[in-house]
Amino acid sequence: MASIDYPAPIRELIIQMKSLPGLGPRSAERLTLWLMGRGVSRLGELAKAMEQLQERVVMCTECGFFTERDQLCQLCYDDKRERSLLCVVEQAADILRLERTGAYKGLYHVLGGKLSPLDNITPDDLRIADLLRRVRELATDEVILALGADVEGEATANYLADALRGTSINVTRLAQGMPAGGGLDHVDEMTLHHALSGRRKMAQ
Amino acid sequence: MASIDYPAPIRELIIQMKSLPGLGPRSAERLTLWLMGRGVSRLGELAKAMEQLQERVVMCTECGFFTERDQLCQLCYDDKRERSLLCVVEQAADILRLERTGAYKGLYHVLGGKLSPLDNITPDDLRIADLLRRVRELATDEVILALGADVEGEATANYLADALRGTSINVTRLAQGMPAGGGLDHVDEMTLHHALSGRRKMAQ
Repeated sequence: MASIDYPAPIRELIIQMKSLPGLGPRSAERLTLWLMGRGVSRLGELAKAMEQLQERVVMCTECGFFTERDQLCQLCYDDKRERSLLCVVEQAADILRLERTGAYKGLYHVLGGKLSPLDNITPDDLRIADLLRRVRELATDEVILALGADVEGEATANYLADALRGTSINVTRLAQGMPAGGGLDHVDEMTLHHALSGRRKMAQ
Repeated sequence: MASIDYPAPIRELIIQMKSLPGLGPRSAERLTLWLMGRGVSRLGELAKAMEQLQERVVMCTECGFFTERDQLCQLCYDDKRERSLLCVVEQAADILRLERTGAYKGLYHVLGGKLSPLDNITPDDLRIADLLRRVRELATDEVILALGADVEGEATANYLADALRGTSINVTRLAQGMPAGGGLDHVDEMTLHHALSGRRKMAQ
């Protein structure tokens, strides 16, 4: 007896969904069947939103943030931003995270990842040549390396610091230490080590 | 200062994704940005798979399983299935779960949900009239109620048993091998196999 399975278009969408980050086989099946059932009116909207994304959004050739095609990116266009400051991040989403702090008013540069020999990501895969060109063109005073505190983030920061050494640019990095709101029982030893060695004077 | 956010097409897809079952705001954002970055080649395929689903797949007018447009559903078409047995399930995905046990060779009927006063789901919202028509047309000997062992599933089973009472049809239900409070999507194949083979008669 032929075994029973969903029709090909359903199987196809389940396969597509399953290979997206964060969606397992069960979620993919549940989501597809929901779309096929109660969510059927949403299929057209979703497909259209995906096409719009592909057609209308591109990467800003300067900073690497997202921008609508034929428009300057909001950040590079904004003449109120401090052009002497350049903050280097791994990915575009990091820009919004930093913006939400309200603590930074300079420009950004998206690397598009971090050095990772295991994943075959070398300096040529990142937007490092663009970074070096931009710091020259913008006459940047300070490059802030806002990279992750993991091994690859550290390696990438060290690589960039080396690449910028010998110029007159100050290269800084994010402070490492205790996350807000947590006690000593919520951080690992490495974090506590950084917090301790980077301690700040409060009073004399 | 205008606050920085993603271009409109990205925000739109994040909003769409966020309202899908099982995707929270953070997953929706991560997934959208992944599609915008490394997954950009997948956007077209995904949009196409969704369109295909909408264009090519319909519900079988008999059993309620999925079928490709202009084709008979595999189950209703298959003349090797026992036509005297009709198994009633809440949703189409339950059919595959039962098929995988290999313990059932009859026909199916998808109700499209279960009675739930809190969600305003009444008998008129389920495929009950179609069920009553089919048992007549198929001259069904036995209707197996393979509904979830939760309150709504029980209430739905009782409602259907009442509706079929007084006919010559045996109405049975899955054995109490089902864990209390769970639907068919929460049990393994062996449990489902026991539940199916130990089904109990409810009315004649």
